Amino acid sequence: FKRYKSISPSIDKLHSELSAIVGKKNAVSSLAAREHHNHDESHHTGGSPAIVVWPNSVQEVSEVARACYLNSVPMIPFGTGTGLEGGVIPKTESVTVNLTNMDAISDLNIEDFDVRVQPGVTRKALNREIRNTGLWFPVDPGADASICGMVATGASGTNAVRYGTIKHNVLNLEVVLADGTILNTGGSKRRCRKSSAGYNLTELFIGSEGTLGFITSATVRLHGMPESTLSAVCSFPSVQDAVNTSIQVLQYSIPIARIEFLDNVAIKAVNNFSKLENKIAPTLFLEFHGSEAGAKEQVNQVAEIAAANGGTQFKWAETVEERSKLWQARHDTFYALLALKPGNKGYSTDVCVPISQLPAAIEHSLSIVEKYGILCGIAGHVGDGNYHCLLMLDSDNESEVLRAKMAAEEIGRKAIFLGGSCTGEHGIGIGKRELLKEEVGLETLNVMKGIKNVLDPRNLMNPFKGLPEI
Amino acid sequence: FKRYKSISPSIDKLHSELSAIVGKKNAVSSLAAREHHNHDESHHTGGSPAIVVWPNSVQEVSEVARACYLNSVPMIPFGTGTGLEGGVIPKTESVTVNLTNMDAISDLNIEDFDVRVQPGVTRKALNREIRNTGLWFPVDPGADASICGMVATGASGTNAVRYGTIKHNVLNLEVVLADGTILNTGGSKRRCRKSSAGYNLTELFIGSEGTLGFITSATVRLHGMPESTLSAVCSFPSVQDAVNTSIQVLQYSIPIARIEFLDNVAIKAVNNFSKLENKIAPTLFLEFHGSEAGAKEQVNQVAEIAAANGGTQFKWAETVEERSKLWQARHDTFYALLALKPGNKGYSTDVCVPISQLPAAIEHSLSIVEKYGILCGIAGHVGDGNYHCLLMLDSDNESEVLRAKMAAEEIGRKAIFLGGSCTGEHGIGIGKRELLKEEVGLETLNVMKGIKNVLDPRNLMNPFKGLPEI
Repeated sequence: FKRYKSISPSIDKLHSELSAIVGKKNAVSSLAAREHHNHDESHHTGGSPAIVVWPNSVQEVSEVARACYLNSVPMIPFGTGTGLEGGVIPKTESVTVNLTNMDAISDLNIEDFDVRVQPGVTRKALNREIRNTGLWFPVDPGADASICGMVATGASGTNAVRYGTIKHNVLNLEVVLADGTILNTGGSKRRCRKSSAGYNLTELFIGSEGTLGFITSATVRLHGMPESTLSAVCSFPSVQDAVNTSIQVLQYSIPIARIEFLDNVAIKAVNNFSKLENKIAPTLFLEFHGSEAGAKEQVNQVAEIAAANGGTQFKWAETVEERSKLWQARHDTFYALLALKPGNKGYSTDVCVPISQLPAAIEHSLSIVEKYGILCGIAGHVGDGNYHCLLMLDSDNESEVLRAKMAAEEIGRKAIFLGGSCTGEHGIGIGKRELLKEEVGLETLNVMKGIKNVLDPRNLMNPFKGLPEI
Repeated sequence: FKRYKSISPSIDKLHSELSAIVGKKNAVSSLAAREHHNHDESHHTGGSPAIVVWPNSVQEVSEVARACYLNSVPMIPFGTGTGLEGGVIPKTESVTVNLTNMDAISDLNIEDFDVRVQPGVTRKALNREIRNTGLWFPVDPGADASICGMVATGASGTNAVRYGTIKHNVLNLEVVLADGTILNTGGSKRRCRKSSAGYNLTELFIGSEGTLGFITSATVRLHGMPESTLSAVCSFPSVQDAVNTSIQVLQYSIPIARIEFLDNVAIKAVNNFSKLENKIAPTLFLEFHGSEAGAKEQVNQVAEIAAANGGTQFKWAETVEERSKLWQARHDTFYALLALKPGNKGYSTDVCVPISQLPAAIEHSLSIVEKYGILCGIAGHVGDGNYHCLLMLDSDNESEVLRAKMAAEEIGRKAIFLGGSCTGEHGIGIGKRELLKEEVGLETLNVMKGIKNVLDPRNLMNPFKGLPEI
């Protein structure tokens, strides 16, 4: 393997120091290791890290941070690499800290519905581990992401409408700051449901995208497994009809678990990819959790609401197999769209708007992608007002990449205008830093910068991500 | 009325400046105004403000802040004065800014379940205003507090177990910093359900207790009114049995709306005060929201769980009147206990522990109040693990006040040891600043101090509250 040819002599010195901390085999600058850590699942590109280290404990993370801090070399936390905004891509000569060797699941408190996980624990791994307890961790962004990585991103996914986003499911965090300081955002022991003690540093780290420190463990909430789970699909004459159905479901306080929207293009792609025969129309995928009677009551209520909004083909998944197939299809939407034009790369927008604004926002998005000539399917967590324009593009075609970028920016700007956000769950990363400025305004951004400066005065934690240069 | 005799000549100069901003009648230093603003509902005492101002707009708040900032005079935000930790009591020569003249309810979005309220809007006022919309604001701390004040405190109350605490119900905040800067934590328009854009400044202000700035408006979530509401009371052989019932209710994912605990002393006081005939035993007050069938199913499930834990007298409130009486009794617990020994003052502890630790924590609390010889009833939001030891004391009896303080401290320390927090919903205020240090540790406290310093570099926002001097 080709080693990294440093531009600064201090990198070689740092490499020796890091090897002394984590062991030679866990501090690597081979081309393979560096290339494995130069991308996530987005279309974003950049450089490769100079060195990749795999610490095995929070003490080692602290010592690694301290060494980088004293050498003034930027650090990038790395989990499963399943991010969608380029948050792990180096923009300068950096050390990438792969945290996945730390994969302990500890302090499982079944009576209190909480557990502590290190960064190497993915949501599926946790759910496998606790499958016999009657509990589960519901936050589901699709990818089998690291839970600590989901914390860093501010992730959510398909069942946030019932179980909340990641921020509603974190009780405490252990973090390592740029200078190696180890702290717990809620103190070393806290795992109670609520607290009004001091500033909410836990929430400050949620969605901080690696720019404030390393998240080395998360104490998260678990939920009781539903006694009964039912799924259904329903198609509608228009986007407005599908959205109206969602609004009314929420208005009637029906505790629906998932309410997911796919547009015509996405449905067509999903039908092809997953061999399904859904009607080509704006469609809702629905899931109901509850007691047996409770879940059935929800289904009947929602079927009635859907029918009143012109919904047809309210189809049940009667078996576990049918249900899995239905949701697999939903989760595979991105890949289904990619398969429409082999060789394509995808870029997912991630706007969130007040639900009443969804029809206007989606209509605008469709006009924008048409204007720029970009193939696009839409998938949305419609109960939260969050939807993704899945833009398909040939990453070698510079004009297409530029047009996609311009389309994404216009879509984000429109969402902000409608009372929404340019990102509901993917984060700012590399590409939306200017939109963040438009969204929150200069005064608010200045406070964010000030906070960044308190926690990371040398700007070494994942620089050029999350916040724009003012 | 006696005017305030300033210790610094600059106060008179500031008074003129403030009068020019808010008008003479809204900048007052009469004894009556000053004494009205020198206490909250707690036993805490301190000084009176030098001047009280009533601004009428965010621009006036900004100009008031700017004037105080340039004169280096501390500022104290004041809402309904219903706090329980002395958060509004001046500790130095200060200007109290009473925000209740700003009482607009605006931007009601029925389809999106959100609304914007200024600091003069209480939860009851909001619910009156929207009573015909099918929506309601559920966060209910008992007192008819200002919603912006609840944000500042990090409040919650009896139905957080279903609808979340205040932090789960805030979408955006308008705030004024110490130097007069006006900003929106989520930008000027944002009111969507979720966002991963930048650091979560909204959460940073929730529970900041007036130490980071003035909250001049809050965009909050509303919820659909339940179709059916049912209430019940059930008594148990022991605290453990009552708590086990709660744990199992949560384990079965029964979406209970309220599950409130009262101990023997509290039940006895409530019986006397509200002319009720509850059995003198550890008791749960329960409320169920849902469809007609759904709420009934919940009742049946919970009745079964309660019976399996030795619960007796599972009594229904069949009419709206009975239900109101039941919950009025629960909300009057504090006053019922005060009535046991006329002339007493009350002090409420506010610990929160993991629910499995509730029996141990409550048993410990009872032994502590016995040790210190303090009359005490216990009321708890048991679904959250949060409970209050309502300490009754003669505030003229120095020894009793001291013993109550020592008891509260030991109770808080034990909660921290058990994985809990010294405050679930009342905040740190004046009295728990040293406990905060024990709870979160010095490194975490240092970060909090750093953040305070970014937003309020001259330490003028409500000094000597919330954070300890390190």
